[in-house]
Amino acid sequence: MTGPLPSSSLDSLFRPQVACVIGASQHPEKIGHIVFQYLRESQVRTYPVNPSVSEIDGVRCYASVKEIPARVDLAVITLPAPAVPEAIRECAAAGVRAAIPVSGGFAETGPAGAALERQVKETASQAGMRVLGPNTLGVLVPASGLDTMFVVKERCQRPPAGSIAFISQSGATGVTVMDAQAYYGVGFSAFVGLGNKVDINENELCDYFGDDPATSVLAFYLEDFADGRGFMEAVRRVIRKKPVVMLKAGRSAAGARAASSHTGALAGEDRVTDGVLRQLGVHRVYDEEELVDAARALAYVPPAPGRRVAVVTTAGGHGVILADEIAATVHGFGLEMATLGPDTIARLRSETLPIASVRNPVDITASGSTTMMTAAVDALLDDPAVDAIICGVLLQTPYIDATLVDELAKRARAASKPIVAYVIGGAVGHEMLRRLEALHVPAYQGTWRAARAVAALVERGEFLRRQEAARPPAGPARPVDLPGRALAEHEVKDLLASYGVVSPARMVIPPGQELPAALVPGGPVPFPVVLKVSDASITHKTEAKAVRLHLATRAELASSFAEFRERFPDKSLLVESMAPAGLEMIVGAVVDRTFGPSLMVGMGGFWAELYQDVAFRALPVDAGDVRDMLASLAGRKVFSGYRGLQVDVDALVEAVMGIGQLAMDIGDRLVTLDVNPLLVAPHGVMALDAKLVTR
Amino acid sequence: MTGPLPSSSLDSLFRPQVACVIGASQHPEKIGHIVFQYLRESQVRTYPVNPSVSEIDGVRCYASVKEIPARVDLAVITLPAPAVPEAIRECAAAGVRAAIPVSGGFAETGPAGAALERQVKETASQAGMRVLGPNTLGVLVPASGLDTMFVVKERCQRPPAGSIAFISQSGATGVTVMDAQAYYGVGFSAFVGLGNKVDINENELCDYFGDDPATSVLAFYLEDFADGRGFMEAVRRVIRKKPVVMLKAGRSAAGARAASSHTGALAGEDRVTDGVLRQLGVHRVYDEEELVDAARALAYVPPAPGRRVAVVTTAGGHGVILADEIAATVHGFGLEMATLGPDTIARLRSETLPIASVRNPVDITASGSTTMMTAAVDALLDDPAVDAIICGVLLQTPYIDATLVDELAKRARAASKPIVAYVIGGAVGHEMLRRLEALHVPAYQGTWRAARAVAALVERGEFLRRQEAARPPAGPARPVDLPGRALAEHEVKDLLASYGVVSPARMVIPPGQELPAALVPGGPVPFPVVLKVSDASITHKTEAKAVRLHLATRAELASSFAEFRERFPDKSLLVESMAPAGLEMIVGAVVDRTFGPSLMVGMGGFWAELYQDVAFRALPVDAGDVRDMLASLAGRKVFSGYRGLQVDVDALVEAVMGIGQLAMDIGDRLVTLDVNPLLVAPHGVMALDAKLVTR
Repeated sequence: MTGPLPSSSLDSLFRPQVACVIGASQHPEKIGHIVFQYLRESQVRTYPVNPSVSEIDGVRCYASVKEIPARVDLAVITLPAPAVPEAIRECAAAGVRAAIPVSGGFAETGPAGAALERQVKETASQAGMRVLGPNTLGVLVPASGLDTMFVVKERCQRPPAGSIAFISQSGATGVTVMDAQAYYGVGFSAFVGLGNKVDINENELCDYFGDDPATSVLAFYLEDFADGRGFMEAVRRVIRKKPVVMLKAGRSAAGARAASSHTGALAGEDRVTDGVLRQLGVHRVYDEEELVDAARALAYVPPAPGRRVAVVTTAGGHGVILADEIAATVHGFGLEMATLGPDTIARLRSETLPIASVRNPVDITASGSTTMMTAAVDALLDDPAVDAIICGVLLQTPYIDATLVDELAKRARAASKPIVAYVIGGAVGHEMLRRLEALHVPAYQGTWRAARAVAALVERGEFLRRQEAARPPAGPARPVDLPGRALAEHEVKDLLASYGVVSPARMVIPPGQELPAALVPGGPVPFPVVLKVSDASITHKTEAKAVRLHLATRAELASSFAEFRERFPDKSLLVESMAPAGLEMIVGAVVDRTFGPSLMVGMGGFWAELYQDVAFRALPVDAGDVRDMLASLAGRKVFSGYRGLQVDVDALVEAVMGIGQLAMDIGDRLVTLDVNPLLVAPHGVMALDAKLVTR
Repeated sequence: MTGPLPSSSLDSLFRPQVACVIGASQHPEKIGHIVFQYLRESQVRTYPVNPSVSEIDGVRCYASVKEIPARVDLAVITLPAPAVPEAIRECAAAGVRAAIPVSGGFAETGPAGAALERQVKETASQAGMRVLGPNTLGVLVPASGLDTMFVVKERCQRPPAGSIAFISQSGATGVTVMDAQAYYGVGFSAFVGLGNKVDINENELCDYFGDDPATSVLAFYLEDFADGRGFMEAVRRVIRKKPVVMLKAGRSAAGARAASSHTGALAGEDRVTDGVLRQLGVHRVYDEEELVDAARALAYVPPAPGRRVAVVTTAGGHGVILADEIAATVHGFGLEMATLGPDTIARLRSETLPIASVRNPVDITASGSTTMMTAAVDALLDDPAVDAIICGVLLQTPYIDATLVDELAKRARAASKPIVAYVIGGAVGHEMLRRLEALHVPAYQGTWRAARAVAALVERGEFLRRQEAARPPAGPARPVDLPGRALAEHEVKDLLASYGVVSPARMVIPPGQELPAALVPGGPVPFPVVLKVSDASITHKTEAKAVRLHLATRAELASSFAEFRERFPDKSLLVESMAPAGLEMIVGAVVDRTFGPSLMVGMGGFWAELYQDVAFRALPVDAGDVRDMLASLAGRKVFSGYRGLQVDVDALVEAVMGIGQLAMDIGDRLVTLDVNPLLVAPHGVMALDAKLVTR
């Protein structure tokens, strides 16, 4: 936290001048002592508060916060949960600007705790006092030494100053990760344990660290979102200037259960979350190591200008493994191994040993030297066909020495494409990891982590380039006039038509009416036709035997019509032209409990549901979002001539936008909207079936 | 390498009494010196050989291997490649039992090197001398200190003795991995660098370490297979008694290219390799860290008796992350989070703090103690609904101490279900990893690696249980009588029928013949029918417009028949009943260049090829193999009532076995056999189209 900051009420939390510890203790093993000790060791004037103690470590102890002879910026409350509401009231009365109640025992434990939490929230809110937590380790700002964490430093290393802001809903996840990373000297601009989020949440912190000049990357560990739409807005304000990385736990059904019992969180549907993070450009990660691995890469080196990766190593086997990891789509990142230009190959040939392999992956061999390695890196940097470089730093061989670290760092700083290092080794290897980290070369123990970091840099580059492309804006919501009842299929299709999503020619025959004479081959509804019951009460027509396909003649239609009239006397019947063959997709909208109205696009038909090949985005979406949804489907090859299939992608995108707009326009009344299948033909698209449930 | 071993010619390599270094050097930085020094430091009597030097480090140097006054078990040759064939000849003449030429410069560099390699091979083969390499680091046997590796110990730690035999085609991959693992005290029974495999290959070593009492797990890094069928046989001899783990590099097209340029290897089709490894019960891994991670788990603790995993930790957030990793099918292992029994929950409730979460994942919280943690582990061990336990060893909190390591080790040793530990931490954490390793508790830095290790233990358990199930044996090959020409569709179908794979009722009309009068609705070929050209020259009937579906009447058939007769006057035409609706699958056979005749089963139809949802196995297969192939498909839900679909799985398995038998019987003449689609109906299956290419 260096340099000028815009004034923020959160400054009391991250840049306090005066602090106090309510519940400070004389006993070194007590939380109230540890917190007091570490706050004193930082540059913050800290007052201990405890009515039953006169002094702690030679410092006068106050009976109450109101006796402190200074305006307190930050009160760390180490009392047990039942005593916290009263302490908060005293802080509010004394004009304390921010408080961190560290104890657990609040909403995460049940109704009694939740009641305590409500009291904290109300008191603070009325007084305009900011609260972090409760149930939190608080904050750490390595650059200033500010440290409210009650884990002892002998067992839990603190990281040095750096540029990663780490916002964690779980304090334990936060400190264990920082301990693990501090071992290699990985630095952080700040750590915040969100705890139960009664006041301060991830969204406000996203803005705060978005504006913090000491922070270059935001790394989140979240188990739930305090406000999904607020998160989207906050991320959109920072994501173009600073990368955001997120470990969102509670993905699986089991994980979601665990999240509920852990912090009272309710996990949203992970598929929606996944789509929204992609839509926002947030880099999603899946474990705590990957969280920092990605953050370091994004903090230290530029995004990759493309997907073509070059590898240079002294260990040929590593090159083979890396090539797999980079290029494979299963257990790999589906990137490309760069095809080196002839000039590059010639340079590599002249600057390395005859036994070297000068194609990508470049293997300068165990007899290669630091000079050869740096020459090889230079050649790859100069090759316009290379977008990112992975370089082995392996000191097991005789002619590679530690100066390689400095040479790489020099190049990594200057280059417009990223250089990532990997190490596989013991004591010397760990030392190299520390040196590389100190010079801000993203470096990883093992090939996989290095390849994964490059994939994060490629994703960031692609996101930024997508942002640069001109994109037609999503339309504003226009309220739509819905009848006060559920809609039949033909009514939903009429509605879709007004949004530009057409259906096959059709005729609706209300209850009691005869089969119109016009329904003959050559008439207004071309044959063959399909006969369906069109009624909101029948949601699964096939199961209800309420649909008959391939009716080729008037006689066949009449026979089925007579049967349906008898079985469904009070329902409207729908006669519709059979659609031609084409690609069947599914497009739908739901209201996600975290992110609100959300759009789904996926492969339709029998197989596709089996493979659950769908993508979600929060609404509204623009055409760029929709194209990105299509590109993210596993079966995306269908859009580019797979098996000679012609697919009108432009019309599909238009239709998806239209369906999204309809969902937006329905607004709060939407429950679900399903167009399934949406038939994508060589020219145009058609909704073959559609359902809408509103409230 | 302790205990009695059956006598083997490889003992000269792994248990030499007398060794020599040909090319020994006085210069400490030279390979010829390093190897000599390390061999002397081991318990092996070692003679230096170099005609231009009289002594090295006070040891008399011999001008030639034939002057050495002892029978040499092992000669390490540190001369450059061009001098190696002559050195090999001298060794052979002197009766040396085994040689390790370490230098590169052989087949991996081109034809000249390949010629040198052939000389080495021929000389050794004639003399009955064993050769490891060339282009190898040789061997390391930590228990005896035998060490032929030319990387200096100051830069590359040697691991302690352990029970993992590590066989690596790449020396650099081998030593860097051992260096990295030695940092945590991970032990190995032996390391072997295969290099260019002119003589000794992975198959012989599989048998050797299969019999080695010091080895409990075999870990392979391979870029190609010396002999795929030989590998299958060797693995089958050891896999039930010892787990085999493999990192097979060269998976992707790019990786395969790299493998070619690296060791002259030709990579096989990875999908076949993948299926064969699964068939054999080899645990496949994807990077060098995972290789040892899996080997350690399999070496130290028993396989999991089922898929239900319990987690116990002091950090709730880790539990949420682990639950995701365990249960999620995307970025997870698709296992189950165990549902704890009521007794277990009651025990956990009584032995942990009130704020603890006693459902899986169990969170004893940061206030939990070592005693509570061990009590929780005991409760989980006693719960029959738990098959594997992941336990956090996190010393950041105040009441967990290092005695947890001993308590866990005691339980891990005694338990019939596996316990795996994870650590997330810095200096203290690394120390805990070392202590856990020393006591053979598989322990990992990070949640992901721990969950992955458990997945390996689950896979091992499932493999062993599959082996126990009675399985009908695959039949022997019976030569089949094939005409000396390509077969038309109807001929392939006749052949399939003789293997029990039927097709719809059909009639073949040879060129020149009229449409038979019998082909009418109600006749021997029930209508509607399909008309096709049946001729070996037409391999893509749809593209050739040589198929017409849905012919419902004699008139429609006659009209299409007339047209086809005109367009294909010299071809046989096939009239076949239209098949009913059903599940379309594809079954085929190819001859893989590594593993020979191999069978493929997958989802058929448009979507399935898009998703490439197929499984391979080497032939012959038994019914258990085929069922496992079906179970490994992403769309396997179709076999268990998905969307009400009825599928005759038994008939499918029979048909796949029949097709496999046909491929085996065709033998060497097989190029490809495709049954696509194979229609799986509620009762029975039918081949709707079939192609066979033989040579």
